[in-house]
Amino acid sequence: MQRPTLTLLAASLMLVTGLTCAADAPTTIPASAVQTAEQLRDKAMHDSTAYDVVTSLTTEVGARMAGSVNDPRARAWAIAKFKALGFDKVYTEAVTYPLWVRRSEHGAIVAPFPQPLDLIALGYSSGTPKGGLTAQVVQFASLDALKAADPASIKGKIVYIGYRMHRTKDGHDYGIGGGIREEGPLVAASKGAAAFLLRSAGTDANSRTPHTGVTDFSDFAHPDKAIPAAALSNPDADQLERVLAYGKPVSIKLDLDCGIVGQYTGYNVIGELTGRKYPDQVVVIGGHLDSWDPGTGAIDDGAGVAIALGAAKVIHDLPQRPDRTVRVVAFANEEMGLWGGRAYADKHAAEVGKFQLGTESDLGAAPVYQMRASVKPQARGAIEQIAKVLAPIGVTYDPTHPGGGGSDLSQMHLRGMAALSLDQDATNYFDWHHTANDTLDKINPQELAQNVAVYAVFTYMAAQADGDFGSAPGAFAHDGAGE
Amino acid sequence: MQRPTLTLLAASLMLVTGLTCAADAPTTIPASAVQTAEQLRDKAMHDSTAYDVVTSLTTEVGARMAGSVNDPRARAWAIAKFKALGFDKVYTEAVTYPLWVRRSEHGAIVAPFPQPLDLIALGYSSGTPKGGLTAQVVQFASLDALKAADPASIKGKIVYIGYRMHRTKDGHDYGIGGGIREEGPLVAASKGAAAFLLRSAGTDANSRTPHTGVTDFSDFAHPDKAIPAAALSNPDADQLERVLAYGKPVSIKLDLDCGIVGQYTGYNVIGELTGRKYPDQVVVIGGHLDSWDPGTGAIDDGAGVAIALGAAKVIHDLPQRPDRTVRVVAFANEEMGLWGGRAYADKHAAEVGKFQLGTESDLGAAPVYQMRASVKPQARGAIEQIAKVLAPIGVTYDPTHPGGGGSDLSQMHLRGMAALSLDQDATNYFDWHHTANDTLDKINPQELAQNVAVYAVFTYMAAQADGDFGSAPGAFAHDGAGE
Repeated sequence: MQRPTLTLLAASLMLVTGLTCAADAPTTIPASAVQTAEQLRDKAMHDSTAYDVVTSLTTEVGARMAGSVNDPRARAWAIAKFKALGFDKVYTEAVTYPLWVRRSEHGAIVAPFPQPLDLIALGYSSGTPKGGLTAQVVQFASLDALKAADPASIKGKIVYIGYRMHRTKDGHDYGIGGGIREEGPLVAASKGAAAFLLRSAGTDANSRTPHTGVTDFSDFAHPDKAIPAAALSNPDADQLERVLAYGKPVSIKLDLDCGIVGQYTGYNVIGELTGRKYPDQVVVIGGHLDSWDPGTGAIDDGAGVAIALGAAKVIHDLPQRPDRTVRVVAFANEEMGLWGGRAYADKHAAEVGKFQLGTESDLGAAPVYQMRASVKPQARGAIEQIAKVLAPIGVTYDPTHPGGGGSDLSQMHLRGMAALSLDQDATNYFDWHHTANDTLDKINPQELAQNVAVYAVFTYMAAQADGDFGSAPGAFAHDGAGE
Repeated sequence: MQRPTLTLLAASLMLVTGLTCAADAPTTIPASAVQTAEQLRDKAMHDSTAYDVVTSLTTEVGARMAGSVNDPRARAWAIAKFKALGFDKVYTEAVTYPLWVRRSEHGAIVAPFPQPLDLIALGYSSGTPKGGLTAQVVQFASLDALKAADPASIKGKIVYIGYRMHRTKDGHDYGIGGGIREEGPLVAASKGAAAFLLRSAGTDANSRTPHTGVTDFSDFAHPDKAIPAAALSNPDADQLERVLAYGKPVSIKLDLDCGIVGQYTGYNVIGELTGRKYPDQVVVIGGHLDSWDPGTGAIDDGAGVAIALGAAKVIHDLPQRPDRTVRVVAFANEEMGLWGGRAYADKHAAEVGKFQLGTESDLGAAPVYQMRASVKPQARGAIEQIAKVLAPIGVTYDPTHPGGGGSDLSQMHLRGMAALSLDQDATNYFDWHHTANDTLDKINPQELAQNVAVYAVFTYMAAQADGDFGSAPGAFAHDGAGE
């Protein structure tokens, strides 16, 4: 999203010079495909496959943190579900990553007012020494304030940052809240902090459900370089700040039993509807199969997997396969650093030109309200054709900002895959994200179905397009997408 | 609330017979007292004492389950706070009760879909055997269905009842939800159940915060007769019901480390503003000092203690003490069976005629919207005078239903104390009641101040009344109040 100007500039240039050679002919979607897409849309709006899928996943498997005992259960579930839905091919691809485990976590204010704190350890947090760690708290107003601080004021202390995330439709404030969670522990560690605490990166201001999530720790060869890091629920952060406001030294005891314990090999699970005319050209959609552990991973990202499967299912049920292959990927270990997405991009980088268009659903189950695209200028017309089919179900097209491909598929986009962003309403998402409250009841079946309709429409239309969307090695390196 | 008819009948009889002897002269409140009450009301609406008090209690002490390590800390806090607020007398009265402790609790579905359950043990639940207890679940639609069930279908199983509490302004549905929690474990135990589970008696349909609360277990000489009993959060109850709906045998493992471990002597903490004319006649208000343990006891019942103290404080700050004594009681161990209230009534039953009027605040911090009264017919006019002062701040007077005195003071009412009920808006109360979410952020300072105004007005007016409200041994035995 940072540099839309270049895309616009390129589009303008194409318009002015009016190139019409074959390779640069406008990509269009045949009228018959548009008509079928409209039918798919209307059918998907009343199709229960996705809701059934996310119900099945969250009920039968539940939480499925990467590398946990539920990781292989989730994989077996996915393989069986893909097969049951009638995919032509179902296969897996290995993804190897550091294995971080959570065993238990406790925190308490020790002085001046002893009381427990509701907190949750962050991904790649180290454990505390056996018996816990007690240290004085030092509070910073922001990540920048922490960065600017004298290490002498931090050494041996527990750093606390209390940024309050704001509720917005586009969820942009997660950039700040999530950024503190990711970078804060590293900055604190670099200054000798004993541990790091933050106010949860979540908008549930009144709920005692702390939000976990990954940190930027990446020195996996030396896992002991990480420090204990955890998030307080919003009311617990309020409480800590009230206690700090008394002006007395505040000490906290942390007892986190967690850490990196080796490597694990998980798997991306992949299903395909084989393209009738161009089987080696693919439209790729997906979600991530792993979840954080406190909830059952309904909105993050059972919904994404379900939306992609639901979209593929209505396309599967057409009288014949689309021209190009429809590929659904249920990615492994998105949560702890896009491991599945990066492994996928590493493996398939050379084929990027065969990826017609793609994007991943990973922002819950609320309706898609906006589409953005990173495509070649000659494919803007086809994107507008897609937008026209999506408009009746509440999706507007923003031609001024690029698409990014979603979380894992951002990695293919960075390699040159044409990509959409299908922005979902994130107003409530960060109330539940990465918490015990990420459960099935947060999903509205009708809203989920709208997502399925959106994915079915674009997937089918891209698969039927006359022409491509510009995928090529490095094609979108300068459009600023990839977020 | 069960039998209002008799009160109405009595009132009608008094009206018809028009008794005017001295003892039966109408109780009235002098114009000067009405005027002062109006000033107290307006002052209290902007007074921060109560909010400061509940902030102090929940921040400096936090959770304070009866008999826990925080019980004496809360008592010390209360004594110090009463003194700091300028009460003329501050003293304690002993309350002895069975000591129930919670050490830890875990639950999980073992089959067919293994996964943890978020649950909390109920008061007087026994612990499970070391290593936990695994048994098949048998579901009942209601307490009546459980009562009607053949013990053979229950023996050795875990009984589950999934009643969903409905949100109402008067909170009446807690009668059903709380009733299942209280009585269910006993009925299940009597039929040989291994354990008892319920859907939390709470209206937070989407929150993974199970609601604890007491059971009706009362055979304290034989604590082993209790069975393990716990509440699932609403989403966990949804999940269990989804799993049960697969029609396969569902087994659950419960590992509850809790139980009755002896006796404990706590204390009601009492403060008085000594009456200028009739120091031995008292208007009594209060809240309960104990709380459940998962939250910090802000709405239950830090608010009640704070409301009573806030009301006493504005009366304390008048140029002179009211005619009668104002007594504030912070009751011990309300939560596990009105132990503080019962001890208080046992101790003070003989003085009931000296209790001018009383009621306890124990339904959170949302505004009072309705007043009910159990008073002698000749005092209805004085109640109407009070109602007139309260009307501008949103309180209506319901003369058709009796008052009950609130939770602990219901026990004095049952002995014959004239009592009010000051009904608070309970719309949101049962979202947080007895959960980790009972924290300070749930209290709106303005709404809390409205409660203080209500308590200050009635307390002062009752203290200044010419005449009494009918307290006498057994006076209200037949009005159906006492809930």
